[in-house]
Amino acid sequence: MSLKAVFEARSVAVVGASATPGKIGYTIVENLLGAGFQGRIHPVNPRGGEILGLTAVRDPSEIPGKLDLAVMCIPAPLVPAALEQVARAGAQGAVVISGGFGEVGNAELEEVTVSTARRLGIRLIGPNCQGVNYTPRGLCATWPLLKVPGPIAIISQSGTVGAALGDWAEQEGLGISAFVGLGNKADVSELELMEYFAGDPHTRCIALYLERVRDGHEFRRVAKEVRAEKPVAILRGGRTARGRVAAESHTRSVAGSYAVFKAVAGELGLYLATTVTGLYDLAKFAALSRPPAGRRIFCITSSGGSGILAVDAAEELGLVQAELLPDLAEELRATLPERCVISNPLDLTGDADAARYLTAGRLVAAHQAADVYLMIFGDPVPGASQAARALQELVAPAGGTVVACCLGGGEVERDEVVRLHQAGIPAFPAPERAVAAVAATLDRAPQDGGE
Amino acid sequence: MSLKAVFEARSVAVVGASATPGKIGYTIVENLLGAGFQGRIHPVNPRGGEILGLTAVRDPSEIPGKLDLAVMCIPAPLVPAALEQVARAGAQGAVVISGGFGEVGNAELEEVTVSTARRLGIRLIGPNCQGVNYTPRGLCATWPLLKVPGPIAIISQSGTVGAALGDWAEQEGLGISAFVGLGNKADVSELELMEYFAGDPHTRCIALYLERVRDGHEFRRVAKEVRAEKPVAILRGGRTARGRVAAESHTRSVAGSYAVFKAVAGELGLYLATTVTGLYDLAKFAALSRPPAGRRIFCITSSGGSGILAVDAAEELGLVQAELLPDLAEELRATLPERCVISNPLDLTGDADAARYLTAGRLVAAHQAADVYLMIFGDPVPGASQAARALQELVAPAGGTVVACCLGGGEVERDEVVRLHQAGIPAFPAPERAVAAVAATLDRAPQDGGE
Repeated sequence: MSLKAVFEARSVAVVGASATPGKIGYTIVENLLGAGFQGRIHPVNPRGGEILGLTAVRDPSEIPGKLDLAVMCIPAPLVPAALEQVARAGAQGAVVISGGFGEVGNAELEEVTVSTARRLGIRLIGPNCQGVNYTPRGLCATWPLLKVPGPIAIISQSGTVGAALGDWAEQEGLGISAFVGLGNKADVSELELMEYFAGDPHTRCIALYLERVRDGHEFRRVAKEVRAEKPVAILRGGRTARGRVAAESHTRSVAGSYAVFKAVAGELGLYLATTVTGLYDLAKFAALSRPPAGRRIFCITSSGGSGILAVDAAEELGLVQAELLPDLAEELRATLPERCVISNPLDLTGDADAARYLTAGRLVAAHQAADVYLMIFGDPVPGASQAARALQELVAPAGGTVVACCLGGGEVERDEVVRLHQAGIPAFPAPERAVAAVAATLDRAPQDGGE
Repeated sequence: MSLKAVFEARSVAVVGASATPGKIGYTIVENLLGAGFQGRIHPVNPRGGEILGLTAVRDPSEIPGKLDLAVMCIPAPLVPAALEQVARAGAQGAVVISGGFGEVGNAELEEVTVSTARRLGIRLIGPNCQGVNYTPRGLCATWPLLKVPGPIAIISQSGTVGAALGDWAEQEGLGISAFVGLGNKADVSELELMEYFAGDPHTRCIALYLERVRDGHEFRRVAKEVRAEKPVAILRGGRTARGRVAAESHTRSVAGSYAVFKAVAGELGLYLATTVTGLYDLAKFAALSRPPAGRRIFCITSSGGSGILAVDAAEELGLVQAELLPDLAEELRATLPERCVISNPLDLTGDADAARYLTAGRLVAAHQAADVYLMIFGDPVPGASQAARALQELVAPAGGTVVACCLGGGEVERDEVVRLHQAGIPAFPAPERAVAAVAATLDRAPQDGGE
């Protein structure tokens, strides 16, 4: 049974819906409404009544028309019977948010739940998960409320880590295509989800947070196939011995060797992060940019200091400063104000406006002197996004990639970061983060299959 | 002459004030007004007229009453004569934002400017700088507009790096006490500013960004004295050979060896950052928290995954997981819901509210089992700040330090981060950043002088 029943659902029941703010059964209904879900929402509550303006049915059998998906926020022992009920209403997908299964030692209840779902032809996400979101349809059956559509599909064994990525993406106007909290992944695993989003037209990059990989061989097979379609950014908790112990008590299962995992990730061309912010940065870069064709970086900045810090980071992470060719230097010197520092980094100085970035960018692009063009907007620069987009158009044909860094620009900057993302240019809040994201994607081409 | 003429000015002239939005001479007047400057603002413009509702004088001689400070945004060659004029009006401080001095090779003009200022008894910040801010008086003679008072004094050789720190601090309700753009530091240097803010009652931590240290011996002497008073967080651009070349072309002077600088920073107990975000995190932690008394960390979390990532970071950065004593484990087990994972990290699970954090925190605190208590709020937790503050009060007497990490909590989280900072608890957006800030301050006690 396809996962379409989950993500393309047209009729969703919230089993355990509540009229009490703060309860999960309230939040889910609220967020489905808030995200503008493109389908019918059916709160299910034995007491009936009205929940957030919707009429609650007492029982799934009262749902009019065919049901596609059930989101469950009821006590764990009630889940198997509820699956029977929603199946009769037509459901082929269930997202079980309820905890109280394998993660607290109730392995038997988890087995019964999964076997019930399988017998009924229901695909089950969770249990003990933070729900799902699919922004193209406004299916925010999770929290917080996220509704900006974007290119990243987040699959996370930690609800919070996934929520953090989505929240940051929403704040920056980048957005996500999907979020799936894996929870105990008793039925649907990250592998099937990766395959699903590899084929999802709204997803350009998959961001994964995992604590354990159940079957290394199978992971390798699937990841390789998926990676041939789309970039995959990944963070694995439990890198250290103590972290692994913590991971095992979180999921009650063996986390596995990080060294082996790292080797496999490297071999498959996955982008490997070691922090939550690093995972976000990698996913952002991978979702918007092609991997750089080489290691040469050229920096155009209004902030001398930020340019220096970018150089430091680039040197430490194995990028190479693009040579400033004498012809280009002469053209820049002839065109830009005298106070600009003609070097790499090219310092346009603090009063640089978008027009000066554009002028400099055109000259630099004409020489195709680099693989990566880092534009640092170190002051409020209205129109930064247009200048970056123009440069991107000029350098893309020769395989160049433009990355932006915006800092110190206050409100203007926050607007421009959103516009940069809308224009398809990844924007980072500090030079080192921009450089680190680029560097982590070098030499990470998939070994088989084209980009 | 004291720097009080600058930071405690009661009467400020903006020389080169403009009625044209976008011009620096407009922005400065706008931001002084926007920050609610507690004194008189005198726009100076040869054409007179009105600027942002203020009457502009044509000449500093027309300023009524005594002038304290002149902020200059006029072409560089006009600065020495303007200094003569503002001195006659009483000014004892000048902030020269104008560029066009030593940084573009006009060493002679810079020398004339400094010697003029010195002869007139004027202390000069800059030239070629991004201005100054002193929030206790609303003196925002810089950009962007920052007006949230807070504990961090930023001294930066890069206007942008300093502005970024201030902007982040404002966004998070942390705030700054001061910002000073050093520019060419032709008269006032970082050393004098460090001494000044060491004695400033509104400043609890000094954050420094530098590209060069003119006199290593003098830096060592001053930093040692200042460090005995207050913590100092520092980032130096030009760590790598290529970065040093870039730094030298930015400031037209020798950057010096990073290895030597690093050794000196270590010896003096300065908190050394290697990224802009790292500098912010260190300054935040140092401004709000006492350095931990030891390496033992205990983590209380609602997010299992974030707890694991915190453990990984702590292990990698030399912290030690505090032992969960059997007595404490038993008390926690007896008190918390069954689904909570009784270990370190202590996983309160996703539905944890502030009350559960408080309950757990009280039990943990009674055993004084750790030096650092990391509270991860991995969901919207209204009241997180109160729970963290309560724990802080319980553990502080025995030298314990509470650090918060908030992620995945949407709007609730943004409010709580502000409240956490108002309550004096540093809050970080990812577990690794919280742990890294703590780790960087270990073994960094000043060698002489008390904390």
